Amino acid sequence: MSTATSTVRPVLVAGQWRDADYQTTFQATDPNKNESLAAEFPVSSWEDCDAALDAAVEAARELRRLPAEKIAEFLERYADRIDAAKDSLVESAFAETGLGKSPRLADVELPRTSNQLRAAAAACRTGNWALPTIDTTAGIRSCYEPLGPVCIFGPNNFPFAFGSVSGGDFAAAIAAGNPVIGKANSSHPETTRLFAQEAAEAIKETGLPPATVQLIYRTSHQDGERLVSDPRVGATGYTGSRSAGLALKAAADRAGKPIYLELSSVNPVVITPGALTERAKGIVGEFMMSVLMGTGQFCTNPGLVMLLKDTATDKFIDAVTEKFKSTAAGTLLSPAVAKNLALSVEKLCDYGAELLTGGGEPETDRCAYANTLLRVSAAAFLGNPDGFQTEAFGNASLLVVADDVGQLCEAIAHLEGNLTGCIYSATDGSDDKVCQTIAFELTPKVGRLLNDKMPTGVAVSAAMNHGGPYPATGHPGFTAVGVPGSLLRYGKLTSYDNVRPHRLPAILQDKNPTGETWRLVDGIWTTGDM
Amino acid sequence: MSTATSTVRPVLVAGQWRDADYQTTFQATDPNKNESLAAEFPVSSWEDCDAALDAAVEAARELRRLPAEKIAEFLERYADRIDAAKDSLVESAFAETGLGKSPRLADVELPRTSNQLRAAAAACRTGNWALPTIDTTAGIRSCYEPLGPVCIFGPNNFPFAFGSVSGGDFAAAIAAGNPVIGKANSSHPETTRLFAQEAAEAIKETGLPPATVQLIYRTSHQDGERLVSDPRVGATGYTGSRSAGLALKAAADRAGKPIYLELSSVNPVVITPGALTERAKGIVGEFMMSVLMGTGQFCTNPGLVMLLKDTATDKFIDAVTEKFKSTAAGTLLSPAVAKNLALSVEKLCDYGAELLTGGGEPETDRCAYANTLLRVSAAAFLGNPDGFQTEAFGNASLLVVADDVGQLCEAIAHLEGNLTGCIYSATDGSDDKVCQTIAFELTPKVGRLLNDKMPTGVAVSAAMNHGGPYPATGHPGFTAVGVPGSLLRYGKLTSYDNVRPHRLPAILQDKNPTGETWRLVDGIWTTGDM
Repeated sequence: MSTATSTVRPVLVAGQWRDADYQTTFQATDPNKNESLAAEFPVSSWEDCDAALDAAVEAARELRRLPAEKIAEFLERYADRIDAAKDSLVESAFAETGLGKSPRLADVELPRTSNQLRAAAAACRTGNWALPTIDTTAGIRSCYEPLGPVCIFGPNNFPFAFGSVSGGDFAAAIAAGNPVIGKANSSHPETTRLFAQEAAEAIKETGLPPATVQLIYRTSHQDGERLVSDPRVGATGYTGSRSAGLALKAAADRAGKPIYLELSSVNPVVITPGALTERAKGIVGEFMMSVLMGTGQFCTNPGLVMLLKDTATDKFIDAVTEKFKSTAAGTLLSPAVAKNLALSVEKLCDYGAELLTGGGEPETDRCAYANTLLRVSAAAFLGNPDGFQTEAFGNASLLVVADDVGQLCEAIAHLEGNLTGCIYSATDGSDDKVCQTIAFELTPKVGRLLNDKMPTGVAVSAAMNHGGPYPATGHPGFTAVGVPGSLLRYGKLTSYDNVRPHRLPAILQDKNPTGETWRLVDGIWTTGDM
Repeated sequence: MSTATSTVRPVLVAGQWRDADYQTTFQATDPNKNESLAAEFPVSSWEDCDAALDAAVEAARELRRLPAEKIAEFLERYADRIDAAKDSLVESAFAETGLGKSPRLADVELPRTSNQLRAAAAACRTGNWALPTIDTTAGIRSCYEPLGPVCIFGPNNFPFAFGSVSGGDFAAAIAAGNPVIGKANSSHPETTRLFAQEAAEAIKETGLPPATVQLIYRTSHQDGERLVSDPRVGATGYTGSRSAGLALKAAADRAGKPIYLELSSVNPVVITPGALTERAKGIVGEFMMSVLMGTGQFCTNPGLVMLLKDTATDKFIDAVTEKFKSTAAGTLLSPAVAKNLALSVEKLCDYGAELLTGGGEPETDRCAYANTLLRVSAAAFLGNPDGFQTEAFGNASLLVVADDVGQLCEAIAHLEGNLTGCIYSATDGSDDKVCQTIAFELTPKVGRLLNDKMPTGVAVSAAMNHGGPYPATGHPGFTAVGVPGSLLRYGKLTSYDNVRPHRLPAILQDKNPTGETWRLVDGIWTTGDM
């Protein structure tokens, strides 16, 4: 069946780097030169998916027999290998994504990635993620357990920290005890391959099942939908465009398979005149940093700024417009990102937004688009709320100016679900009452509410919610970042009712398995033995 | 619009008992006489749903402003009113379902129902269900919050404990801070109306928003699908048949609305020859009780018994067959249940199951079906695993006899997701190794694993999982019974990032709001202040 040749990159299936089964290939683009990179990657046929699924089922069985400690060791060993391979990973990601080598890739995203794996290892080792619960009166004990093979579709914008075999979804799925079938993002397949190499070596070194981590680069849409709905799959994690994500969701839903999506988000930021009167310069700087840093290519990019008609607001708009004009446009991840950004800006203009600056391609060979600011009245926004929530992924933002707080709140009431929402207000509390009204409307629409802070930092914290109501994600109860939330997505709840003590999983036995595992025993959280 | 007359029961919308908007009506049946009951109930048009949704949105907003204490007070007041209204509730439920007045309805299900509401009140009051999490280093705090109006579709088999305005789903949705739109089960609309009356009075007494609890009796399928996918809805809870549940799921999924389903389950029970050699008589009794109690109409009815070829097994089969023959068949919930049971048994026979006893209607005016036992070899089961997993809801069970443990495990590997799975084995541990092999296969297939105990008791416990993999439910991570799991289904995760202290929800402020709320603070569970 295979038509592979030595110039086409192999897939990682069942612990072997082997020739893919494919009809066509693809190449990534260097966005700094807008030129195709040399390496060719296969578009796998269903045969590759099928083989990976069979191997994953076997790996899932083996993983269930292993102590959590072994999985934690793998995650830590893999994290160490990533740190050691920093230079080649950064070179590859720079070539494939155009993201800055330093600080972005080498000093921010890479350490975040390896530390995320270490945090997942800690959660795996203690089992704290599994919410072990013991009811001595009823004789019932419960915990979360692995769900089965997890498919991970990584996004284009974080080749390390959200990568399909290195990022947060990956770490969560593995730490919960599941093997992963990674589908590389087509914009950085070589970087993903390098990660898979390190993972495969770490697997060998720590004795995990060979198919714990597998990698394919691309499939047809049809095979992607078949993959996420296959009976052998436990769940899927997807980060990317809304249209592709919803197609996968429809397939997974029909088969009753959980799928966790992180889709689009415009991340509304409300800035009161009180905040601007007090500290406009600082806020202009924070907004600039947030929307132009990484060329705006963050899930939590502030794409919608909601303002109240005021002279302070006018000055703010003038100042950011000036700054957007005078700042060089960054490099976008790919020609497709540049094209989609142009299309989205065009749409917003067609709907009636005023272009304050930008709106075209700068003169450069790089994949790029001018820093773009648009403006619309809240009245016009309310005439077409769906249209004006078109996500313009990249270095662009839409300013919505309301006549009064009532109109601002009406606009908020028309927002779709978002990952984040922010409120900037006066520090002296003079507009607190207004902010309370705004927060009451905004909070149900977002996964994370911020005060006086731009949304683009996503801390790896137990209290982080990188999630939110549909269509920002597929389920409002889960986070893609942080422990235990991100792991629970890949867990199955199991009760043990009257099960003989020696047959219980270690985490539910009378003796606390680590001495530091938190367990809810008869309504009291404790790390003690029973 | 309304075509109501005084003989047709009113719906409860926005705190008012008002004439429904309807074209047709329906009546419940007394299964003890197989005769229609007098009361007429409207099949509501979309106008009723629409009005209830508008009112629910307003109630959801008001509920968000109330302290948890107020909601807890309502739940407790409602529980007290249910206890006080016991006689009329039991009379009505007996007439509509044929379930025994005592002990079943009056002494088991009713106290369970009111106590379930009190347990939900306690979880609401402390906020323990919301998993409040505080990260002082990152300055981020998170908790679960209400999701918005919840639609509850109750099942036919528990008119009190799973009732759409009285049961576990209802208690969970309200305790999480959401208003409920209840859709009565068509087999016991009058009983549901009586509950709604008590709820409405308790709402008045405790000052909750009038639309906190609303009730309609029935809609067209089309309007039901429109209801669960309406933008105003937060989530849906459904317990009932697989076909109707999956139609609702498809509609809700398309709209990105969470829906929690409890569908069919055959609840495999494995009994080893070792267990039978040791204590056959006791196991026969337990099995009889479990499958014939309530005429087998439990979600966790043991519908599939998996045995190993052995003389002890033969004796067990003879003994239960004899007992099934000599025990009078109970009353089924409705003519539809009797008809579906007959159809399912017919199907199992068509597939090749041997009818050991039963398989027809006894001579009685009641809705009833003979106690039915069927038998099939594991080899035949493996030839048509889907067919032989047809749920025969009621007083029937299929015995599957395997040649050896390998074949038994292969049959288990072909099981769909189930609510429960049991293993009976020798108490002296002589078959422990075999049981370990069996449990390894069975556990991933079920939400609750039992040892030496039939599955029909579902304790209201923090460690209970009344859930399981698809198609037993729609999501393997949630339970319909117990706290906090059942409440989390109706919650939205929200992070507060850098939010000013006085703007935080009470549960996330430095001071522990109740002195007994468990919060995860910097990785440590504590009830203390910060």
